[in-house]
Amino acid sequence: MARFFMAGTNIAGGMAIMKGRDAEHVRVLRLRPGEDMIICDGRGTDYKCRLVKADKEQVEAEVVEVVRCPAEPSVKVSVLCGLPKGDKTDYIIQKSVEAGAEEILFFTSARCVAKPETPEKKLERWQRIAEEAAKQSGRGIIPRVSWAGDFAGALDAAVKKDLGLFMYETGEREALNAVLEANPGSKTAAVMTGPEGGFEPFEADLARIAGLHICSMGERILRCETAPVVALTAIMYATGNLA
Amino acid sequence: MARFFMAGTNIAGGMAIMKGRDAEHVRVLRLRPGEDMIICDGRGTDYKCRLVKADKEQVEAEVVEVVRCPAEPSVKVSVLCGLPKGDKTDYIIQKSVEAGAEEILFFTSARCVAKPETPEKKLERWQRIAEEAAKQSGRGIIPRVSWAGDFAGALDAAVKKDLGLFMYETGEREALNAVLEANPGSKTAAVMTGPEGGFEPFEADLARIAGLHICSMGERILRCETAPVVALTAIMYATGNLA
Repeated sequence: MARFFMAGTNIAGGMAIMKGRDAEHVRVLRLRPGEDMIICDGRGTDYKCRLVKADKEQVEAEVVEVVRCPAEPSVKVSVLCGLPKGDKTDYIIQKSVEAGAEEILFFTSARCVAKPETPEKKLERWQRIAEEAAKQSGRGIIPRVSWAGDFAGALDAAVKKDLGLFMYETGEREALNAVLEANPGSKTAAVMTGPEGGFEPFEADLARIAGLHICSMGERILRCETAPVVALTAIMYATGNLA
Repeated sequence: MARFFMAGTNIAGGMAIMKGRDAEHVRVLRLRPGEDMIICDGRGTDYKCRLVKADKEQVEAEVVEVVRCPAEPSVKVSVLCGLPKGDKTDYIIQKSVEAGAEEILFFTSARCVAKPETPEKKLERWQRIAEEAAKQSGRGIIPRVSWAGDFAGALDAAVKKDLGLFMYETGEREALNAVLEANPGSKTAAVMTGPEGGFEPFEADLARIAGLHICSMGERILRCETAPVVALTAIMYATGNLA
C-alpha cells in the first residue's frame, strides 16, 4: 500500500488534506478515489486513509483507521558509528533504518581516516537517505541522522541510554548475547562501532569506565559498515522485534 | 596477523612452502623472518606459521601450531537468494561471507527482473568476491558461490538441509525466533529469500509443501539484499555463533 509521511498533510475532522510534493506523488502513483493509502505521522502512528479526491492543488482522503505502526520496534536503538570513508555512511544509514534503528549518529575517533570537514553539510543528504529507507521499509518514524562530534560526544550520547554496547575486537569482552539476555527490559539502547581501523585500546578503556558493555560478536572480523547492522539485528532478535 | 588460504602452499614435515601469488603477497606485505602468519587450509584448519625465508621463488615458514579456525560457526548455513538486479549480488556475497555463510546460491524465481543470461560467466567474479571477504573477515573456508538454477532447483537444495527457512512477507508464517528456538540442534540450515518483488504466493505454497518453515522477520520490509544478511545474523545469534 502507498505510504507517506505527513510532511505536507493536515489531518482534521477525519479528513487528511495533502499538498506539495506528497500530493504530487499521489498523482504520479495514479491512485484513484476509493483506493487506500497510509499516512504516517512520523511519530509511530499510521492513518489508514481512503482517497476522496486528487486534483492539481491538493489531495483529500478520508481517515478510515488510526493504528500504531506495526513496524516500530519496542526498543529504541541509537546506532553510533565512527565516521567511515566514502559512501559507507549511506549504506550504514539505509541498512540501519531497515533493521529498525531509532537514530544514527556519526562521530570521529582516533583511527578515523575520513575527514569530517563539514559534516553539517552532509546531514541533509544523510537525512534524505534515512527518509527514503523509512518509506521503503514501512517505518513509523523517520530515524534522525546526527553528528555526535568526537569520541567523547559519542560516549556521552551512549551512556544516556538504558543499555550501552561498545563493539570491540580484542581483549576482555562480554558476549553480546549474554549482555542482551541479562538486560531484557531496556527501553533504549546504544550501539557503538568503530571506523575502518576499529577503536584504540584507550577508547575501549574509556567506554568501559563510562559504564558501557564491551562486547564481542564472535571471531569473524566485520567491516565497519557491516558491524552496526549485525549488532542492531542481534538486538532486534534478542528483544523479539524480528518475529 | 597476515592470513592466507592454501592455494599455492604445500605443508609437509612441519614446514609450509608457498609459491605463486601468495608468495608474492608475503613479499608485498614485507613480512620478515621470525614474523607470524596464518595459512588456512580452506577446510576450517589454521596453520600458525613463522616465516623462515622469503625470496623470489618461494616463501618458507615453520608450522608453529595447528588449530581449528575460531571464526567458523557451528552451523553451516546455505544462503539462497532470488537473483537481484545489478551489483546487489556482490553485496549479498560479501556480507553473507562476513556474517558466516557456508555457501551462497542464486536462483531465478517468478518475480526476478534480472536476466541470468550466462550466470556461469559471473561465477568466477562472484567466487573472487567471496574469497576476498573470507580473507578479510578471517574465515576458515572460502564459501562457495553457486548457481542453483530455477526455483525448483533452489527448493531442492534447501530441503536437503536439517532446517529450511523461507522468508516471506505476508500470510500465515512462523516467527523466525520461534523456529530457531524449536530447532536448536541443526547442523545445516538453508535460508531462502526472494528477488526485488519477493515471492509469488504459489512459491510460498510450494516451499511449505516441501517442508520449509515459512518465516516472518517482523513488519519492516527488508530490501532483497538486506534480508539474507539479517536472516543469517539471526541464525548466528540464535545458535550462539555471535558471541
